[in-house]
Amino acid sequence: MELLDKLKWRYAAKAMNGKKVPQEKLDRIIEAARLAPTSSGLQPFEIYVIKNQEVKEKIRPVAWNQSVITDCSDLLVFAAWDTYTAERINYMFDLTNKIRGFENEGWENYRQMLLSSYPQKDAEENFNHAAKQAYIAFSQAITAAAFEGVDATPIEGFDPAAVDEILGLREKGLRSVVLLPIGYRDESNDWLVNLVKVRKSTEDLVTVIE
Amino acid sequence: MELLDKLKWRYAAKAMNGKKVPQEKLDRIIEAARLAPTSSGLQPFEIYVIKNQEVKEKIRPVAWNQSVITDCSDLLVFAAWDTYTAERINYMFDLTNKIRGFENEGWENYRQMLLSSYPQKDAEENFNHAAKQAYIAFSQAITAAAFEGVDATPIEGFDPAAVDEILGLREKGLRSVVLLPIGYRDESNDWLVNLVKVRKSTEDLVTVIE
Repeated sequence: MELLDKLKWRYAAKAMNGKKVPQEKLDRIIEAARLAPTSSGLQPFEIYVIKNQEVKEKIRPVAWNQSVITDCSDLLVFAAWDTYTAERINYMFDLTNKIRGFENEGWENYRQMLLSSYPQKDAEENFNHAAKQAYIAFSQAITAAAFEGVDATPIEGFDPAAVDEILGLREKGLRSVVLLPIGYRDESNDWLVNLVKVRKSTEDLVTVIE
Repeated sequence: MELLDKLKWRYAAKAMNGKKVPQEKLDRIIEAARLAPTSSGLQPFEIYVIKNQEVKEKIRPVAWNQSVITDCSDLLVFAAWDTYTAERINYMFDLTNKIRGFENEGWENYRQMLLSSYPQKDAEENFNHAAKQAYIAFSQAITAAAFEGVDATPIEGFDPAAVDEILGLREKGLRSVVLLPIGYRDESNDWLVNLVKVRKSTEDLVTVIE
C-alpha cells in the first residue's frame, strides 16, 4: 500500500535546510488536517502557520533551541480550544445546518446534549479533550507531508505558555499543544537521517481477541 | 493528491453490515498505526483487536448501544499506558539499541532525562500524554482504512472504565482511550451516508503569520 511506503519514508528530521515548501504543497498538508474527523465534528482547534522568520526566532529558544524551528519553511502550531463554550458548540451546529441546508431533529437534540454537558465541565478536562482532537489533525498533516515528499518534525518539546504568549493565543481562547515544522531535511547535518526506524513489534503492540 | 481523495471518501459510518474485512487489509491498517510517530518514540499504547462477537456484545451496551460495535468486522480498542514507568521507558531505549546495533551517548543521556522526569510525574498527567500519542496512531489507522476502502468509525462515546473491566486492561497498566470499529457501511441503514461532509472553512481554521 502506498500509504505504508510513505509512512516508512517519513521521519522526524532533526535538521532542515531552509528551502521553501511550495505553497500548493503546504495547502494540501493543511487541507488534510482540515478534513480530519473530530469528536462531534467540533474541530476544537486552530492552526497557526508561521512563515515570519522573526516569530520563528522568538519560538526557537522556548523550544529547546531546536534548529528546525528556524530552518523549516513553515512552522505549524496546533492550538486547541481552552474549553468548550456554548458559542463554539453552536457555531459548528449552525454551520452544519447551513451547509446541509436543513435542520434535523436528532441533530438538534444532540446539540442540546452537548450544550448541557461540555460548558459545565472543568476547563482543563475540556482542553485535554480538545487537544486530542487536534492530534488527529496533526497526525493527518504528518501523513500528508510524507505524501508531498516534504519533511515534518513533530515537536512536543516546547514551553506551551511561552508560545501562547508569543502568538497571543490565550486572548483567543486557545492553547498551543504541538508544533510541526514543515520543510526539507538537511542530510549533512542530521544525525537521525540514516538511522533505522524503531518500532515495537506487532506482537508487542497488538492483542487479538478471537 | 490521492490522500485527500481518500480523506474525502471516508466518513464515520453509523451502520455496518457485518461483512468481514480481509485479514491482509486489517494487517495494513494496524501496520499504519504501528508506524505512527510518538513522543520520544515510546509508543505508549497497545491495540486490542476484538474479533470475538461475545466480547463486542459486552462492549456495545457501555458504548451508547451503537450498532457498529457489534456489526463491524473488527473492533479496535486503543489503550494508553496508565503512566510512564522506568521499565517501560527502558524497554524502548533497549529495543532501539538492539535494532540499531549500537549505543549512542546522546541517546543514553536522553534516556536518563526521561527516567528522571516521567516516572515522578502524576499518573493522570502521564496518562493524558500517552493518550495523545495513541491518537496519532488512531488517526493513521483511520487514514489507512480509507486507503483500503474500508469504513472505520471513530468512537469516544463509551465508558472507558467499563471497557477496561471487560478487557482486563487495568491489570496490564492500560486504559482504553478510543474505539475504532472497522468494517463496511450498511448504506440502507445509515442516516449519515449521504450527508455532505461538514468542516470549518480554511479561513476559520488557519491563521497565517507572514
